[in-house]
Amino acid sequence: MSTTYDAIDLIRAKRDGGRLTAQQIHWLISAYTAGRVAEEQMSALAMAILLRGMDREEISQWTAAMIDSGERMDFSSLKHDDGTRRLTADKHSTGGVGDKITLPLAPLVASFGVPVPQLSGRGLGHTGGTLDKLESIPGWRAELSGTEILRQLDEVGAVICAAGAQLAPADKKLYALRDVTGTVESIPLIASSIMSKKIAEGTDSLVLDVKVGTGAFMKTPEDAAELARTMVALGTDASVKTTALITEMNTPLGRTAGNALEVQESLEVLAGGGPADVVHLTVELARHMLAAAGRPDADPEEHLANGRAMDTWRAMIRAQGGDPEAALPQPKHTHTVTAAVGGTITRMDALAVGIAAWRLGAGRARREDPVQAEAGVYMHVKPGDAVVAGAPLVTLHTQEEQRIPRALEALESAIDVDEEGGAFVAEPLIHATVTAEDL
Amino acid sequence: MSTTYDAIDLIRAKRDGGRLTAQQIHWLISAYTAGRVAEEQMSALAMAILLRGMDREEISQWTAAMIDSGERMDFSSLKHDDGTRRLTADKHSTGGVGDKITLPLAPLVASFGVPVPQLSGRGLGHTGGTLDKLESIPGWRAELSGTEILRQLDEVGAVICAAGAQLAPADKKLYALRDVTGTVESIPLIASSIMSKKIAEGTDSLVLDVKVGTGAFMKTPEDAAELARTMVALGTDASVKTTALITEMNTPLGRTAGNALEVQESLEVLAGGGPADVVHLTVELARHMLAAAGRPDADPEEHLANGRAMDTWRAMIRAQGGDPEAALPQPKHTHTVTAAVGGTITRMDALAVGIAAWRLGAGRARREDPVQAEAGVYMHVKPGDAVVAGAPLVTLHTQEEQRIPRALEALESAIDVDEEGGAFVAEPLIHATVTAEDL
Repeated sequence: MSTTYDAIDLIRAKRDGGRLTAQQIHWLISAYTAGRVAEEQMSALAMAILLRGMDREEISQWTAAMIDSGERMDFSSLKHDDGTRRLTADKHSTGGVGDKITLPLAPLVASFGVPVPQLSGRGLGHTGGTLDKLESIPGWRAELSGTEILRQLDEVGAVICAAGAQLAPADKKLYALRDVTGTVESIPLIASSIMSKKIAEGTDSLVLDVKVGTGAFMKTPEDAAELARTMVALGTDASVKTTALITEMNTPLGRTAGNALEVQESLEVLAGGGPADVVHLTVELARHMLAAAGRPDADPEEHLANGRAMDTWRAMIRAQGGDPEAALPQPKHTHTVTAAVGGTITRMDALAVGIAAWRLGAGRARREDPVQAEAGVYMHVKPGDAVVAGAPLVTLHTQEEQRIPRALEALESAIDVDEEGGAFVAEPLIHATVTAEDL
Repeated sequence: MSTTYDAIDLIRAKRDGGRLTAQQIHWLISAYTAGRVAEEQMSALAMAILLRGMDREEISQWTAAMIDSGERMDFSSLKHDDGTRRLTADKHSTGGVGDKITLPLAPLVASFGVPVPQLSGRGLGHTGGTLDKLESIPGWRAELSGTEILRQLDEVGAVICAAGAQLAPADKKLYALRDVTGTVESIPLIASSIMSKKIAEGTDSLVLDVKVGTGAFMKTPEDAAELARTMVALGTDASVKTTALITEMNTPLGRTAGNALEVQESLEVLAGGGPADVVHLTVELARHMLAAAGRPDADPEEHLANGRAMDTWRAMIRAQGGDPEAALPQPKHTHTVTAAVGGTITRMDALAVGIAAWRLGAGRARREDPVQAEAGVYMHVKPGDAVVAGAPLVTLHTQEEQRIPRALEALESAIDVDEEGGAFVAEPLIHATVTAEDL
């Protein structure tokens, strides 16, 4: 039944601005996964796709083919006491600086009885990875079997763990290739990479946090909107109830960027405190997830205030071997940058802070590199705050003192202080919402 | 002294429409040759170059870097009796169907005392390779050492042999990669590939035969002119006196396409006969080569008529172990296609004839495939000729009878006969000449 193609013909077709058929795409991804299409050929095709694009049908088939390359998870056995299905909700962020939202969000939503199967990845470059952050907690382990995931979803409600190798293996292979060939920044390839894993994961609904700004992969509102629409279309076509929020990432989220630092801040949010922007985004994403799972009435702020979200967090950490009461690791070296002049903070660049945290040891340049739990940047101030000359702006945390100078270099022109001290108007944190109705 | 770059940064720069600096290009080609830039990365970059282009300076540096990846030959020791240098002349064709011109041309030019160092390649796809053709001659060998080449140039004047592995090794590696990744059809990459080998070969002057038409790599006059100008510029910048002719390739050259068949036709030309188009192009290319080597007075037609070119051919074949008197191999199977109706032949498609010859066994699909010396297509008629119904059009030659049906398929709509028998006006064989003055 299955037709065989010549990879070179498909590369040429896309190179010359043509479109690939469903059959061609399914053959290609399957042959690539099996090693019958060479890495060199996929690399040339990825560049042709980056420069020529793919239409909605091509992206949809590409995503379906990547899902078909592996196994799909199935959470339909999760039931309420009355025997009806418990609808699951998940969230994915395209990655930003200080974006620890998943940590308070998953237990918060689960505390309302909505299971959250958050299969996650590690960080690369200047954006942190959720698993890297949780691994700051003594004893916590990221790897769970399918059975363990299902049991934890049923008993605790929230699971944040590593996506297994069986989930969209074509995407794993293709992502590693794109990473070294300058073909990451393609909206069709980014969208299909994210959505193939999320659809294969088997969630009933999905809220996407598409970040835009200096610290995000999407630098312009237009690109962010296109990525959001593409992913909402892919989810909708695959019967996953999908919504996207387009959110600000010119400024880091919260006051911390780094692994243990971000866990600490998440605990503050779960305890009813924490920075306003982190709380606001956590609550808004929770509302969308709860509504998608049939709980539009639920009030997330209540469960942050009354400790229910924190209870679920503790149960979630314990279920994966972690000790929620253990002290978080502390850095060997710190270095505080102070204000040269007094005034109002008008800018704190997300990319610069992300690179500084990365250089301090919080991030990795290559997949196999280790990360330091203790490393990162603490922000004493944020845009809109007033400072006096000599006041602390940021404190750098690291295990290796020699990392500090290059982190300082990254921060050199990252923070603007307006000495006039005029009024500062912040960008709205949430720019737009994209639902299936907007397509 | 030497700067190190990150291949991903160079890929991204080209992908986004930027230009690469001389330093970046030299680092890249050197690192690629040494295996420090991965095939996957070069593949993505080749696609970016194909779609984004390179400017004259980039192409020039790219070519220089490929030359620097290997050794350069040096023919400056070739001297006249009075001690002055004997200037060498070479020719390169971009490849066509029935293009056996090198075979009579090299000995013809050498018969005037101008050394012709023709370092050549094998055929791939529907165009034949000069070495494959000469290997039809019993005993002839393509591999010569540098010392053998120099001695043969001095004593015989003409050498047609395999380009050694030491000549532009980066090009060999890159060409093999482009061949499987759909990145062959890039004018900057084609031009630098050809010219890096020709410049490294050390010829003083070079005449390029840039083919245009269905049977050529360049399908449009615009592309052919751009390729010709690019190559003339590269040669000129490298102090090689370079001229390009843009010549017709909608119709096969001469009456034969295939290895032994083309040697036979070349012998007819060297004996003072042969098809008019082959003779015309051989003589015109010879005039340009002789003029470039300081012999504008020489009359190539004279040496075809008086047997001097044939004498040099015999000496050249003998010097490489071949027997110029030996019978050429004959095919086991032949099949003649006849005219269904009478009239004037108005079209004989070069690509179709090339594919038919390839399918009969004359060409190879992969570099390591063998070719049949005996296989090919003999054309009884050419456009402009009148035929009666039932007259032979073409005869197919092969060693394997089962190859005939697919060859016939290729020829199905390759030949047009105008039953009205009206006047036929042929395209001129030589469309244009490009010299350094035209840049």
